[in-house]
Amino acid sequence: MTSGKGKIINDPVYGFIRFPEKELLQIINHPLFQRLRNIKQMGLAQLVYPGAVHTRFHHSLGACHLMGKALDELSAKGVTITKEESLAARIAILLHDVGHAPYSHALENTLIEGISHENISRLIMHQLNSEFCGMLDMAIEIFNNTYHKQFLHKLVSSQLDVDRMDYLNRDSFYTGVSEGVIGYDRILQMLSIHDGELAVEEKGVHSVEKFIIARRLMYWQVYLHKTVLSAEILLINILRRARELAVDGADLFTTPSLHYFLYQQHTAKDMKSNSDMLSHYCNLDDNDIMTSIKVWQKYPDQILATLCKMLTERKLYKVILSSQSLDNEYNLKAEQIKKTHNVNNADLQYFLSTGVTSNDTYNINDDRIQIAMKNGTLLDISEIDNPIISQALAMPIHKNYICYAQPLI
Amino acid sequence: MTSGKGKIINDPVYGFIRFPEKELLQIINHPLFQRLRNIKQMGLAQLVYPGAVHTRFHHSLGACHLMGKALDELSAKGVTITKEESLAARIAILLHDVGHAPYSHALENTLIEGISHENISRLIMHQLNSEFCGMLDMAIEIFNNTYHKQFLHKLVSSQLDVDRMDYLNRDSFYTGVSEGVIGYDRILQMLSIHDGELAVEEKGVHSVEKFIIARRLMYWQVYLHKTVLSAEILLINILRRARELAVDGADLFTTPSLHYFLYQQHTAKDMKSNSDMLSHYCNLDDNDIMTSIKVWQKYPDQILATLCKMLTERKLYKVILSSQSLDNEYNLKAEQIKKTHNVNNADLQYFLSTGVTSNDTYNINDDRIQIAMKNGTLLDISEIDNPIISQALAMPIHKNYICYAQPLI
Amino acid sequence: MTSGKGKIINDPVYGFIRFPEKELLQIINHPLFQRLRNIKQMGLAQLVYPGAVHTRFHHSLGACHLMGKALDELSAKGVTITKEESLAARIAILLHDVGHAPYSHALENTLIEGISHENISRLIMHQLNSEFCGMLDMAIEIFNNTYHKQFLHKLVSSQLDVDRMDYLNRDSFYTGVSEGVIGYDRILQMLSIHDGELAVEEKGVHSVEKFIIARRLMYWQVYLHKTVLSAEILLINILRRARELAVDGADLFTTPSLHYFLYQQHTAKDMKSNSDMLSHYCNLDDNDIMTSIKVWQKYPDQILATLCKMLTERKLYKVILSSQSLDNEYNLKAEQIKKTHNVNNADLQYFLSTGVTSNDTYNINDDRIQIAMKNGTLLDISEIDNPIISQALAMPIHKNYICYAQPLI
Amino acid sequence: MTSGKGKIINDPVYGFIRFPEKELLQIINHPLFQRLRNIKQMGLAQLVYPGAVHTRFHHSLGACHLMGKALDELSAKGVTITKEESLAARIAILLHDVGHAPYSHALENTLIEGISHENISRLIMHQLNSEFCGMLDMAIEIFNNTYHKQFLHKLVSSQLDVDRMDYLNRDSFYTGVSEGVIGYDRILQMLSIHDGELAVEEKGVHSVEKFIIARRLMYWQVYLHKTVLSAEILLINILRRARELAVDGADLFTTPSLHYFLYQQHTAKDMKSNSDMLSHYCNLDDNDIMTSIKVWQKYPDQILATLCKMLTERKLYKVILSSQSLDNEYNLKAEQIKKTHNVNNADLQYFLSTGVTSNDTYNINDDRIQIAMKNGTLLDISEIDNPIISQALAMPIHKNYICYAQPLI
Repeated sequence: MTSGKGKIINDPVYGFIRFPEKELLQIINHPLFQRLRNIKQMGLAQLVYPGAVHTRFHHSLGACHLMGKALDELSAKGVTITKEESLAARIAILLHDVGHAPYSHALENTLIEGISHENISRLIMHQLNSEFCGMLDMAIEIFNNTYHKQFLHKLVSSQLDVDRMDYLNRDSFYTGVSEGVIGYDRILQMLSIHDGELAVEEKGVHSVEKFIIARRLMYWQVYLHKTVLSAEILLINILRRARELAVDGADLFTTPSLHYFLYQQHTAKDMKSNSDMLSHYCNLDDNDIMTSIKVWQKYPDQILATLCKMLTERKLYKVILSSQSLDNEYNLKAEQIKKTHNVNNADLQYFLSTGVTSNDTYNINDDRIQIAMKNGTLLDISEIDNPIISQALAMPIHKNYICYAQPLI
Repeated sequence: MTSGKGKIINDPVYGFIRFPEKELLQIINHPLFQRLRNIKQMGLAQLVYPGAVHTRFHHSLGACHLMGKALDELSAKGVTITKEESLAARIAILLHDVGHAPYSHALENTLIEGISHENISRLIMHQLNSEFCGMLDMAIEIFNNTYHKQFLHKLVSSQLDVDRMDYLNRDSFYTGVSEGVIGYDRILQMLSIHDGELAVEEKGVHSVEKFIIARRLMYWQVYLHKTVLSAEILLINILRRARELAVDGADLFTTPSLHYFLYQQHTAKDMKSNSDMLSHYCNLDDNDIMTSIKVWQKYPDQILATLCKMLTERKLYKVILSSQSLDNEYNLKAEQIKKTHNVNNADLQYFLSTGVTSNDTYNINDDRIQIAMKNGTLLDISEIDNPIISQALAMPIHKNYICYAQPLI
Repeated sequence: MTSGKGKIINDPVYGFIRFPEKELLQIINHPLFQRLRNIKQMGLAQLVYPGAVHTRFHHSLGACHLMGKALDELSAKGVTITKEESLAARIAILLHDVGHAPYSHALENTLIEGISHENISRLIMHQLNSEFCGMLDMAIEIFNNTYHKQFLHKLVSSQLDVDRMDYLNRDSFYTGVSEGVIGYDRILQMLSIHDGELAVEEKGVHSVEKFIIARRLMYWQVYLHKTVLSAEILLINILRRARELAVDGADLFTTPSLHYFLYQQHTAKDMKSNSDMLSHYCNLDDNDIMTSIKVWQKYPDQILATLCKMLTERKLYKVILSSQSLDNEYNLKAEQIKKTHNVNNADLQYFLSTGVTSNDTYNINDDRIQIAMKNGTLLDISEIDNPIISQALAMPIHKNYICYAQPLI
Repeated sequence: MTSGKGKIINDPVYGFIRFPEKELLQIINHPLFQRLRNIKQMGLAQLVYPGAVHTRFHHSLGACHLMGKALDELSAKGVTITKEESLAARIAILLHDVGHAPYSHALENTLIEGISHENISRLIMHQLNSEFCGMLDMAIEIFNNTYHKQFLHKLVSSQLDVDRMDYLNRDSFYTGVSEGVIGYDRILQMLSIHDGELAVEEKGVHSVEKFIIARRLMYWQVYLHKTVLSAEILLINILRRARELAVDGADLFTTPSLHYFLYQQHTAKDMKSNSDMLSHYCNLDDNDIMTSIKVWQKYPDQILATLCKMLTERKLYKVILSSQSLDNEYNLKAEQIKKTHNVNNADLQYFLSTGVTSNDTYNINDDRIQIAMKNGTLLDISEIDNPIISQALAMPIHKNYICYAQPLI
């Protein structure tokens, strides 16, 4: 809907959200941004939470909306933020995920190894910047944290950025997991700047506590959900097998851009110099992956066909999670599966995987969440007298897992 | 999540919903049902409402949940409903949309002409029934309205069925258009059976009024939204052009199942006898269409390439809607477009379309919504003393439209 | 919560709402405004909807918040609104209900006959204005519609004012009647000024339609709900009986300010000159009424005691509603009740009442809702080609009722 | 609304809730239960959260609804619960708060010292039981934990009872404090019985964690909010002063039942034998207190008048909270206030109070929340490997406070 100034979009999470400047609309309408419509924010989590089919496009719009609210709040408190800075910060967050591959976790571990979606977002921002004649100069500085008002970067990327606020909110909305709902509006209203640093006012500390805990719960209940983990490992194994066959000269159905990555080996650092590679990368979305996997179900290689059938029909691996070692279980399952699935040692990996999954709720080595105490000092949230945060949340939790295929009937 | 009996799914619209019987789970887990995960409920409406990416899979689960609630309600009022009937009615609604093609409106007007998704749902139900050894016998009777308790069919398909209740609710939830929210729980609680007929108790009449009006508003604001209409016509034109080229022998990238329908002419009635055709049909989903269109952007035929680029980059047709004739506007635009797009009369159709769109809020010729009056009589809702429904809603509204491509820069 | 500038209040309906100017806070903190905390917005409706205990205090804050949003929207569209005007309009709406009596419908029909709460709001605004040295000058002009920018008055009081928007929203929120939920944010975003007149843009017409229908449904389902009607008539009868006894010299327990109105006859026009009367009026709230009625349950007069017991214990009148004449039913009941309740003709009125209740959804004789058509003209909403509004809603609906006490056990 | 079987009530928190049995309706309709309509659930918290005016009546209905859902869930898992037990458990929870005084915290510390509302609920249940000829026998056993299925008592009263679930949900709904929202439906679905003990299934542990943390946050943000604390202490001081004056023979305006407690000294243990005392107690509600305080604003005693004005006009004490000693601040303020308020040492207490407030989020000495581990064992939630609960929440937090009146202008 276009009304008065700019564009208004109906967002079930926040109600109407508005994009007033033509610069924002130019970016939103650009094909490189529209592509995010075809990349699901939560990848395969929809196999567990059928509502979770929202896209990175929608998340990026939402994060941009929250950035606007955060800046309005800070301005209302007397922080100087120019119109240019406000626009630049919103452009930076709008594009923070533009470099994501489809099912990025899986692709970054197989076909496009070593690639960082943040770096590609940066490359794309530079490309847009030359297309738009320098319009993104300041946005890029903010994104790279070279702009002198560092709090703008902190809002784009830190342990309390608008990216996390939007995705926690949006993911809990679309999954229906109420545990992830955060009081984002209260946190936004508690933001302030002290000596140039982004901080949360002391009386907002319970909201930050809630935010950290909501994130923790979303990790265990959603992002690291057994079945989601299982589906992601299955996808990794499918892509590995397909690559293996491709390297051996097999003639697999693929889309042109997936063909480019499946049949040729590319390294992360090529991306910068190889414009073809970036262009193919930006042409990939969820559809390429899922269409190919659907066709591969009938490919003669039994391993590839079986894995693709498992994903398409949602007959996923079973998962065991534990804080203890799972070596015994692994060995036991290995013997079984070699028989039931009739595979040799080399191919066992496709039916039995093991590894570690972890949840760092709050990383004390990372940018810290600062609390502006009433007495005027700034404290890291982990330093304040708060037993939940100080004692408990700081510790990452690791769990071992094994995933194994069940006998097919 | 599996707990106690059956499976529990987290639905953001209703909270936790439960599928207790193993028969329901067998159907939900079947590949023919899992396929619905890849068919968006609202097709291209996500180009206007970015949140509206929910699937027919999710809608079917939701409608099944509402069916359970409706039957519980009727049972609590003393209506005899056996366990078998309850299961059969839920199976019937679970599968009511299983025969949908991706972007069904567009496909049914181009590649797969004359096909009715209801008939295909029926074919698939028969196929599942033989696979599950007669488990769906009663469900099929209910679906076909040959079961003696006709109110069960009415709950599956009528002007006040759980299908509509779920999609109005769900579509308004995911679009964020609050106008479509209905008091579905109140309607469910007002259901009753009088002389074997499904009716709404008189005191529920305002809720039905609200339901009819919500539907009307959703039509104008969402389903028949100009931009959604524009995108659908664009998709139809893309598929028409692709078929035209295919018939001429062009070598278009497609997935195997889309190839089947693009390169061969099939009629609706072949489906019953041709198991290959059904199997290819059931292999199609949104991914096939969108992947192909993305690739076709680079196809040498300028018309196909242009149309595909317009859809992918969301540079849609402009639309004029009017209750008056638009013949003059059409002729004017025709002359312009032949010049700006350099097309001849035969190809003009790809850049300029015209037609009629309409909204029948309540069709008095269709199954009627019955109101059980306090005095014991049953009245059609249009007969009761209600000025909104009786005078206004019964009339369908037709609007003429023209859609035209803008000059490409 | 006080943060940065002004005060932030947590409103379950809108989330955090902010009152930035100290002038607003001075008014909110004034005892004459704080008094509204003790006057329920929906009076006796909580006897049907137990959640509906929200206050006029809360409604006034909410309406003030919506006024701020409406003015921001208009400003964003280029309408000139000065800071003073913005503050004045918010003061005007904040105080629009400040002259309400507790259970105003009942009191205005008994103890304080002929009084208009709007006039008393005006008196109180003048009193505050002299206390605050002219701070309310412009707010009073807007309230009185003597300010030259008439659209500001329209936002305070018209058929599409922020008063109605807040109460429909809030009342449906607290009753749980989802039928009353309106898309207030969409209406606000569709507001515009044409030739100095407040209008809704043409594309907002469905939202206005929804607003009018929501209001209609709230009338039938909530405001004119049989049981609410019954309770209000019972309260009127209690106050009438108490006054009758007081005039006869009975010694009834009352609070001092209720005593003033119960034992002395005052006319509406005295209020202006009699500062004692205004001061007692402003001292009355729901507590005075309910406390007294609770004590009167034990008063020796059997009629008063019975009626008070009926209200306190929620043994309300039975109600018959009909669009036909109820004269026969009335006569029948009259004979019965004279026996069962052992009352004479004079006292029959306390156990049997009759009258007419009506619902004017949209009054074409009143200020009209203007629609700004795309072709530049302004139309009254009832003139546009909209069958629901033009044919149906404009007609008021009258229903006859009788209320009668049931035999007490 | 009465429909089919029983009564349906519209609850904004849960949607429609149903009370099917006539026994429940008899209790709900009883004056002793209807009285709860006039006792706010959150007392004076509405001075901070204007939406928080919901009543103990509404909370009791909601808790009863949750009990029904919990029992349905357990039944669906195969736990034997007879119809009689189901009804009795719902009666027990419906009446668990029936013995509450208005502003019970304040009254129990002043006029009606030493009284436990739980004991009075018990007395009232006995009275209803004789009125209803033994209908409450089993409900009383469950309430008293003498019924052999102890899990029923646990659902009424323990650290994870439906009382807490409802009040956390309801209080966060009506305050608008989203931090208190809990996933009550998920907790209910995770309930199970192991060896006769109520437990939560292991996979529900994150929901319990969320529940405990939500409670903790509600304590700090709402229940122990500085301003709420301040208002409660003010109310205590008002009642103390009024009692002091009453004992001295002052003639204070009061309602008859408040008079009974203000002018006579009663001890908790009298209640059992003195039916007059119980009857007066059950006649008190919020209206008695607030009406009297409003009138006392004009009482000649300056201390009483000032305190009452402070409450009515919301000019509350200022509060300092600290985990350190506040003795110095106290002494300082004492000197100031004796001057500014012109009071002697004896009356200083009315303008300056000090004390300790505390928050026991989870009391390890109390009934424990049991977790049913997948390996079949039962563990106290504090024993499981969960850093948040085990290390942090178990410790109560104490804070010292001082409250002091500000100079009146």
